[in-house]
Amino acid sequence: MTERRRMLTGDRPTGKLHLGHYVGSISNRIRLQREYDSFFIIADLHMLTTKNTVEDIGKVAENARHLVLDSLSAGIDPEHATYYLQSAVPEVCELNTLFQNLVTVPRLERIPSLKDMARDAHKEEMPYGLLGYPILQAADIMCVRSHVCPVGKDNAPHVEITREIARRFNHLYGEVFPVVELINAEVPTLVGTDGQAKMSKSIGNVIYLSDTPAEVRKRVMGMYTDPNRVRADVPGTVEGNPVFAYHDAFNDNKAQVEDLKTRYREGKVGDVEVKEKLAEAINRFLDPMRERRAKYEEQSGLVDQLIVEGTERTRREVQATVFAARKAMGLTGAFNSIRRKAERAAKKAATQ
Amino acid sequence: MTERRRMLTGDRPTGKLHLGHYVGSISNRIRLQREYDSFFIIADLHMLTTKNTVEDIGKVAENARHLVLDSLSAGIDPEHATYYLQSAVPEVCELNTLFQNLVTVPRLERIPSLKDMARDAHKEEMPYGLLGYPILQAADIMCVRSHVCPVGKDNAPHVEITREIARRFNHLYGEVFPVVELINAEVPTLVGTDGQAKMSKSIGNVIYLSDTPAEVRKRVMGMYTDPNRVRADVPGTVEGNPVFAYHDAFNDNKAQVEDLKTRYREGKVGDVEVKEKLAEAINRFLDPMRERRAKYEEQSGLVDQLIVEGTERTRREVQATVFAARKAMGLTGAFNSIRRKAERAAKKAATQ
Repeated sequence: MTERRRMLTGDRPTGKLHLGHYVGSISNRIRLQREYDSFFIIADLHMLTTKNTVEDIGKVAENARHLVLDSLSAGIDPEHATYYLQSAVPEVCELNTLFQNLVTVPRLERIPSLKDMARDAHKEEMPYGLLGYPILQAADIMCVRSHVCPVGKDNAPHVEITREIARRFNHLYGEVFPVVELINAEVPTLVGTDGQAKMSKSIGNVIYLSDTPAEVRKRVMGMYTDPNRVRADVPGTVEGNPVFAYHDAFNDNKAQVEDLKTRYREGKVGDVEVKEKLAEAINRFLDPMRERRAKYEEQSGLVDQLIVEGTERTRREVQATVFAARKAMGLTGAFNSIRRKAERAAKKAATQ
Repeated sequence: MTERRRMLTGDRPTGKLHLGHYVGSISNRIRLQREYDSFFIIADLHMLTTKNTVEDIGKVAENARHLVLDSLSAGIDPEHATYYLQSAVPEVCELNTLFQNLVTVPRLERIPSLKDMARDAHKEEMPYGLLGYPILQAADIMCVRSHVCPVGKDNAPHVEITREIARRFNHLYGEVFPVVELINAEVPTLVGTDGQAKMSKSIGNVIYLSDTPAEVRKRVMGMYTDPNRVRADVPGTVEGNPVFAYHDAFNDNKAQVEDLKTRYREGKVGDVEVKEKLAEAINRFLDPMRERRAKYEEQSGLVDQLIVEGTERTRREVQATVFAARKAMGLTGAFNSIRRKAERAAKKAATQ
């Protein structure tokens, strides 16, 4: 078990998981979880870069529980996953502070996602911690000496910073950290039920993994389709139509999907039928998750115990890592040599 | 004792103290040490923003000892001073990480000293940690909930950042931190023995507090004076002449200084006499320090013990502060509520 290479990935504890999360990251984690010793960070310190009121923080525990239960329901194996709450492993802040000297400001400003933020009006309000969040992310990845990190194209530049920090640290102080490898995780973006934007809780265009069959049906029936199709006998467009994007992503009855597409293009099927069949397909897709959820919910305290034990395991690992990093840098040395000299002097004084 | 308000100030452990340090900061500390409960930081994490090789770090212990022994010799009372090694109180990194969300990038870029660095060629190489060092400094000041901070005009903008962070934190999360008051410490800059620049170890134009009488004499005899005065009978200029700046700063025989100035202006005294009298004056000034140094050196292990015990005291204080800050933010809450729920579930499972 401990021989396996390590993977770190995770989420901010900002809400329940939805289909967009499943497609974008959870499905990948399920695929990779047996290959790697998997650490899943519940990144509340990262949340603070943009949400930092007492009210925001007050939701962390509940949201952390959603994250974990939703993930287990989706197929993450609780026997092998290590979930941990970032802020409960404060030693990561020490690595964060040390690593901040190993990256330049312009290097961070060149990261595309931050460049976008800096270019527009947000620059004046950009918290220093937001500019540096790739460094805290590097500290997260490196604090458990992770070997791999599954990322989509958008996040690859952040993980590249981690690799640079690891190389720079190892070059300056000796080999302490693996240079993390990117697992190129295809991250298809799932359009929201409004057809306008990526599925996102803040927009409200979501279907949650924990939605009931009735909720799923209601959300699907309210979905955006082809706006030019005013009646069922008008030929419709399948491409870019979110209802068909969802059919492609979640309907396991491929023949049905092809049939619906053909009839849709010919103006031979109503939106209602297309949506009814989609709701059924998504519910078929979610049913095994619902079964697992019910099973895990029966085990009272399972989720909390996973977070507590995972955090404890992670903290031990991180303490060992920080010790190794300090030792390599000679930081422990300074204090220890002072302490040892003081102890010798005290002993000498006592025997005189 | 504990009723006294707290003061935090300190130095990077980069070398021995010299007359420039005495004039610029140590004399102030000696004046203030009985009024405040004084914490003196040995700021090795700050050193890392500009000096971060294994070799640099390897000198921290020795330089920390110089800092403390030089300060005690200068008149800091070991009975009341709390010296501590910054990197041995890693909890400060947690405050640093939390505070980084409370300051914007443009706010830091507007700090004059950083603006200067950003304007010139250094910008491309500026480490992220250097841009943010006023935040780490705020964490230093706030981690012991310091009430006052003695600063010269140049450093006032950094302490202003600390005040802003304290106000912002207290506003968001409740009153945890005192808003530190600046003690406007007049910081006269002492010109170096070369007359060209501020006294600085890296330039080598220094007289150390630990120099022997012979070393002082040698350094004074090599000092720069009025370059237009080629012979002793040529009238010389007193203003801007480093030898007279030192007479003003260190010679307690004011009548002698006036006499020398008058004769210098009239071309009636040689450089050698002016310098001999200066060397005598500086040695008179340093003699009580030498006596104290000899006394403290006799107490084997005193300096090390001061650093170890001071660091231990400080760490306890900082741990209490960080706990209070996390509690106010609700960060402890998240994990504790998860932990409590897990414990309840475990107890329930055990009794079933």
